[in-house]
Amino acid sequence: MTISKLDELFLHTLKDVLYAERKILKAFPKMERQATDPKLKAAFLSHREETEEHVVRLEEVFELIGKPARGAKCDAMVGLVEETESMMAEIEDSETMDAALISLAQAVEHYEIARYGTLVAWAKQLGNQKAADLLKTTLDEEYAADKGFTKMAEGRLNAVAAA
Amino acid sequence: MTISKLDELFLHTLKDVLYAERKILKAFPKMERQATDPKLKAAFLSHREETEEHVVRLEEVFELIGKPARGAKCDAMVGLVEETESMMAEIEDSETMDAALISLAQAVEHYEIARYGTLVAWAKQLGNQKAADLLKTTLDEEYAADKGFTKMAEGRLNAVAAA
Repeated sequence: MTISKLDELFLHTLKDVLYAERKILKAFPKMERQATDPKLKAAFLSHREETEEHVVRLEEVFELIGKPARGAKCDAMVGLVEETESMMAEIEDSETMDAALISLAQAVEHYEIARYGTLVAWAKQLGNQKAADLLKTTLDEEYAADKGFTKMAEGRLNAVAAA
Repeated sequence: MTISKLDELFLHTLKDVLYAERKILKAFPKMERQATDPKLKAAFLSHREETEEHVVRLEEVFELIGKPARGAKCDAMVGLVEETESMMAEIEDSETMDAALISLAQAVEHYEIARYGTLVAWAKQLGNQKAADLLKTTLDEEYAADKGFTKMAEGRLNAVAAA
């Protein structure tokens, strides 16, 4: 595939993000199972449901630009999930695991914040306000999810892990 | 390696981020060479200099906790750099390349924002205020770098690429 215009770059990145979201849908239940704190478990569950909506919104954007909703391998998300899995395999106690899970979830959220931020800007540049609005809704949810994880990180979990 | 306490998790993540920063030091000059816009070229150059300082600060944190400054493979940054390289190989025109380079730099910045944010929180929890301050200085620079790239993205580059 060669890319020589912004609309092609937009499509390429859209495919990349669709692949990433689908990968997250598989990773979050594993992370939820490893979590001990009920609030953290609940956060993984609710963010998984949100992620399902993100996939639906991406499919709508594909429809808006008249392209099939096909993902394309996203090396960054593959790496993020590999890091998450190897980290989960190395941690032995539940409090430290919870602290690690929060930090890994935030790394995933920030990757998505960067990509959706880019997609919103490009959709606007391409004059596709409808696509920009859909992508912005997801971007706001990613920001909110990240803030939720930060709150948890600053709360009791780490204090317990340090004890 | 097994991890069973927050200080071990902190050390593990510190190694991961040291590896990531060193990888960025190699990647940014390649991105600078691919950039056309002089402002973007300058941004890669100045952020490369900043990244060298980030490495020095990380080495200081290793010293504070009495551990050798050794990196550990960070799968996420390996994936991010692979994504950047395959993207650069696919793009044919310089304006689209500039738009892509900005977006890839922002993905890298956001990964670092997530990791440094986590490290600051953990350093505080572990009662190491000096380490927290050093890491916070870098965190602030990563936020500023991301904002700088956003400004460029919203500026004329994408408009030109869409023309």
